[in-house]
Amino acid sequence: MSLLLALAAVAASPAAQKPAAALSPGEIVAASPATDWQAISRDDLLVMDLAPDAKGRPRRVVIQLMPEPFSQGWVGNVRKLAAAHWWDGLTVYRVQDNWVSQWGDADGEDKGKAKPLPVGLEKVPQTRYVVRPEGAERSATHEELDTWLATMEGTHGAWHALTHKGAVIKDADPYADETFFYRGWPLAASRKGPSAWPVHCYASIGVARDAPPDTGTGAELYAAIGHAPRQLDRNLAVVGRVIDGIQYLSSLPRGPAPMGIYADPAERAAIQSLHPAREVADLPHYEFLSTESDSFHRYAEASANRQEAFYVQPAGGIDICNLKVPVRVAK
Amino acid sequence: MSLLLALAAVAASPAAQKPAAALSPGEIVAASPATDWQAISRDDLLVMDLAPDAKGRPRRVVIQLMPEPFSQGWVGNVRKLAAAHWWDGLTVYRVQDNWVSQWGDADGEDKGKAKPLPVGLEKVPQTRYVVRPEGAERSATHEELDTWLATMEGTHGAWHALTHKGAVIKDADPYADETFFYRGWPLAASRKGPSAWPVHCYASIGVARDAPPDTGTGAELYAAIGHAPRQLDRNLAVVGRVIDGIQYLSSLPRGPAPMGIYADPAERAAIQSLHPAREVADLPHYEFLSTESDSFHRYAEASANRQEAFYVQPAGGIDICNLKVPVRVAK
Repeated sequence: MSLLLALAAVAASPAAQKPAAALSPGEIVAASPATDWQAISRDDLLVMDLAPDAKGRPRRVVIQLMPEPFSQGWVGNVRKLAAAHWWDGLTVYRVQDNWVSQWGDADGEDKGKAKPLPVGLEKVPQTRYVVRPEGAERSATHEELDTWLATMEGTHGAWHALTHKGAVIKDADPYADETFFYRGWPLAASRKGPSAWPVHCYASIGVARDAPPDTGTGAELYAAIGHAPRQLDRNLAVVGRVIDGIQYLSSLPRGPAPMGIYADPAERAAIQSLHPAREVADLPHYEFLSTESDSFHRYAEASANRQEAFYVQPAGGIDICNLKVPVRVAK
Repeated sequence: MSLLLALAAVAASPAAQKPAAALSPGEIVAASPATDWQAISRDDLLVMDLAPDAKGRPRRVVIQLMPEPFSQGWVGNVRKLAAAHWWDGLTVYRVQDNWVSQWGDADGEDKGKAKPLPVGLEKVPQTRYVVRPEGAERSATHEELDTWLATMEGTHGAWHALTHKGAVIKDADPYADETFFYRGWPLAASRKGPSAWPVHCYASIGVARDAPPDTGTGAELYAAIGHAPRQLDRNLAVVGRVIDGIQYLSSLPRGPAPMGIYADPAERAAIQSLHPAREVADLPHYEFLSTESDSFHRYAEASANRQEAFYVQPAGGIDICNLKVPVRVAK
């Protein structure tokens, strides 16, 4: 085996190249101007209150719904179910480690016991797992894909800009041709179709379903509580994400039966209410760091190339689900 | 925007190309011959018993230590600490959501209260976060990197073989030039150096430390309980992984103070014992699916291209931390 001697610049320790007082990703977010933050509309939030824990502490989970043009058939159903208070009194009946916490009607598959669904829920076809341009199915070049994605909102986000303009982040993705952010959401795209879709990251919320071609109504929902289950992308509908309180779903005891089902119904976590945020009086206002902002650009670059004193070897890249979009309570 | 019409083969629905009765990854594992499994030596296992939960149920965590040539200075320290029963009576004092559960001496930074460490712990330098060939630092071509990695054990695993021989899995990785499996462990490698290192996946165990150049002794350990924190690779030492009972660390209540610290010491989870497996009478025998076996090759391919009836769109790729090495209790 022969190995070439590297140029000195390549072999130099990354530590030697660090600026003296580099900011951490968190410090960049904390220092970002108010103008780089966007309010999250209360119309796009749902509030799920689980029964208090064993010590009587409240467990509130705040859910942000996926924006257009993604998953809107299912999102519409979820809005209807929440408006009807359909989940009230139901449970989190399945918690599988490094996988999902799932809620809805534990008796949903038992015709004699199942809770009736509200009328008017849409039956959404599989084709809606992705969005694509009008017309026949096609295969696009990378440039054509970029052109199409750019029509979605003038830009399709900091992630994409960083990887293509500056090449400062390596975002190679095994599940898609491209990954990027759009209006604060992590997305992926393929040249085949072409098509774009919301990805499953930690705290993403998806629609459980039976065997295809069923796509689920939205009545049974799951939150991802482990490593991003990206194999579910384009196979189940992502309808939102938990922006506050994911720990109340991720720290539940794991169910002992197959797939994390609680064999004993007494183990289930009771849902006191799951309502549109407009019906909840004491909810703070939330905002997210615009993924089109300069602050997000710098946050992304710092996250992929950690320069603060704690790190000795910056990674040089980051995956879409490891770059969490900052969300905070508005000041 | 213009899009080219694709060839029919490209545009065809993946569902139409599915074999009639494709096995799931789990079914491939279940059907694999006994000869494809390798026993995990009891000498490489530690057993941590947390105090029983609120309902009196036991919480046993089984830890497999990292094999040579990786992280051996720290692994040696961890062996000494376990042999000395140093962790007995200490606690899991930090649980941060989508990040880590950490245990050791919660008073370790208070000189008046800190528990004395056993004598003879090695002070391991930062250079040991990776392994590299003897000699000066160099930059290798991809082919040279492969040649070097192949010397590690004749082969460096199914992942690599799949990606390079058949190109059936897309394993693009933003954190490294290559990812692969070696003796059952997920690893990464860079052409710079060249070097190879163990990666942080869900349930990986690493060595907490203070600011560099400190690298930690191994007395304070963490387990990853969320999306793979790959930015920690080459920055903290990975010394092992939880092969049984990770749910007892991942379902603990999250600490309310910054970094997931339990502000109230009463919230900490008590460690009854953390001992070498040879000292534990009632431990089953564990084995893992050899990452050099045909079964693992098929398992990897099926995991990256899900063909069973539940899936409508196989991903065509998978990331190293989403391809979990199967571990089971020996029959």
